[in-house]
Amino acid sequence: MAAAAGVSTATVSQAVNGTGRISEATRRRVLAAAAELGWSPSASATALRRARTRTIALVVRRPTDVLGVDPHFSELITGLEGELAPRGYGLLLHLVPGLAEESALYERLVAEGRIDGAVLTEARSDDPRPGLLRQLGLPAVLLGSPERGGPVPGVGLGQQGAGVREAVAHLLALGHRRIAYVAGPAELVHTGARRTAFEQALAEAGLRPAAVRHTDFTEEAAVAVTEELLALPDRPTALVFPNDSMAVCGMGAAQRAGLRVPMDVSVVGYDNLPLGRWLHPRLSSVDQQVQRVGAAAALTLLARCGEDVPTALLEGRPRLVVRESTGPAPAAP
Amino acid sequence: MAAAAGVSTATVSQAVNGTGRISEATRRRVLAAAAELGWSPSASATALRRARTRTIALVVRRPTDVLGVDPHFSELITGLEGELAPRGYGLLLHLVPGLAEESALYERLVAEGRIDGAVLTEARSDDPRPGLLRQLGLPAVLLGSPERGGPVPGVGLGQQGAGVREAVAHLLALGHRRIAYVAGPAELVHTGARRTAFEQALAEAGLRPAAVRHTDFTEEAAVAVTEELLALPDRPTALVFPNDSMAVCGMGAAQRAGLRVPMDVSVVGYDNLPLGRWLHPRLSSVDQQVQRVGAAAALTLLARCGEDVPTALLEGRPRLVVRESTGPAPAAP
Repeated sequence: MAAAAGVSTATVSQAVNGTGRISEATRRRVLAAAAELGWSPSASATALRRARTRTIALVVRRPTDVLGVDPHFSELITGLEGELAPRGYGLLLHLVPGLAEESALYERLVAEGRIDGAVLTEARSDDPRPGLLRQLGLPAVLLGSPERGGPVPGVGLGQQGAGVREAVAHLLALGHRRIAYVAGPAELVHTGARRTAFEQALAEAGLRPAAVRHTDFTEEAAVAVTEELLALPDRPTALVFPNDSMAVCGMGAAQRAGLRVPMDVSVVGYDNLPLGRWLHPRLSSVDQQVQRVGAAAALTLLARCGEDVPTALLEGRPRLVVRESTGPAPAAP
Repeated sequence: MAAAAGVSTATVSQAVNGTGRISEATRRRVLAAAAELGWSPSASATALRRARTRTIALVVRRPTDVLGVDPHFSELITGLEGELAPRGYGLLLHLVPGLAEESALYERLVAEGRIDGAVLTEARSDDPRPGLLRQLGLPAVLLGSPERGGPVPGVGLGQQGAGVREAVAHLLALGHRRIAYVAGPAELVHTGARRTAFEQALAEAGLRPAAVRHTDFTEEAAVAVTEELLALPDRPTALVFPNDSMAVCGMGAAQRAGLRVPMDVSVVGYDNLPLGRWLHPRLSSVDQQVQRVGAAAALTLLARCGEDVPTALLEGRPRLVVRESTGPAPAAP
């Protein structure tokens, strides 16, 4: 085949495995020659016992109808693709209803040789996935905190609670004393970390949360919780949300209840998605740099797949970006 | 191997190829037995000359940083996954900068046996992809109009321009006479179809567009174009946008310019994304049922991949959903 393509055997190997620094044109010439000889890369890959699929799995454990409304995942995919796409890697997206299905899927994808690695999202306490993937021998990264001790490396900004603490400090400085927290599902690690940060920041000021409500991340829940909180006898003057789309829903619900944002109620989002910049009022939000975390996760994973990539640098911590949806607390009635 | 797993050879074949109606437990037992015997499914797949990868490609021709801000793709992926995920199929997402890269990618994915089919988005006039995919022998569907004559079947609602025509009729009935259209990139088929529909609907009322502006779909463009249009000497009283995120940006830009929506200017979006329901004011938008189109595309493709799926039924046409961002035209100054 090397003769047919007019290249060295090393080049054939590189073309088939997607390694080395050969040009795309050379690679395609080799594969064309191979196809002509009735020879297929998958057979070779099996022979070489290590296929490069140039495919990374991203398994999202959500009902299919929630993905569409949570731009967080678009941002994450954008960050991952920013590093994967230029290197010819694709992202294999699977949606599964629960943890058992997610684990079964990794087993199948590994057994069938379909992926080179996996990005794990939404760490849970007592998460079985890192152990499983190490057992399967599949390179993986876990999005969340930057921990190196576990079965798979963690990729994320440090100080998970820092953004929420900063949001609380900002609201306290504006005179707010009745601050409510809308949280995600209780079983997620980041939900717990941020809730703890929220409660600690208030406790340090001698305060307690006006309310804490767990939700399933849906927009319906954001609207329902906002309406409930704003109808409390001691109405909160500020609401902190777990993502921007829920904050936008909360802002709309407050405005429809006849309240002005931020004059009557302040609203803080999380994720700092692009849309928040263009709303009126512009959304104050915690920037956890989802795209940059995605890019760092891709680089970490590519390095573990044997690719020659720059070291993933991920410094800093989640930070509050103050815009227009937060303002001085209203005078007590 | 059938003996080792205690099943029939037909069951082995079904387990390896992901066909038939065997249970997941049986499939995994067969694959485990296969692995124990040092036998890998990819080798078998090559032998059988027809691997079932249970992977569908979705190649998005956008700069990586635009995907994150266009929820249209999240909706599409949600619709696709709704049919793919329950059948164990994954979606292989690749981002490419242009058409040449997209074509080269299909050639590689087919040569390497990585995918069972592809969903083509954003048809262009003189689109080389349907011809290429038929030549490669890869099952594919083209999102857009429901045409059956081309090299690959089209999947989409009929009457592409109907939604825009309905939006114009709605605005005319509200007394608007100066209506501007913000369009997508000129080279996209749907951009042309909708622009034509917009201009024809106005022409039938003896009117011309107040303005038509092509954009690259970014939020920055939405803000810039809105600011420009609202500064025109004969300010438009209504703006029609090509997607909801741009409409949200336009609404914000109008409000920041001191105009009330819809009392001073009406705004219409496109796609009817969930967020529009929760904004204040709630967004009037053309519903082209992105999720349903995605689901129908998945079913059409799965059928062409030999899966036993229900026939994809996609009836209706794009329809305007009237909410609060459109209202009577302001009295002439």
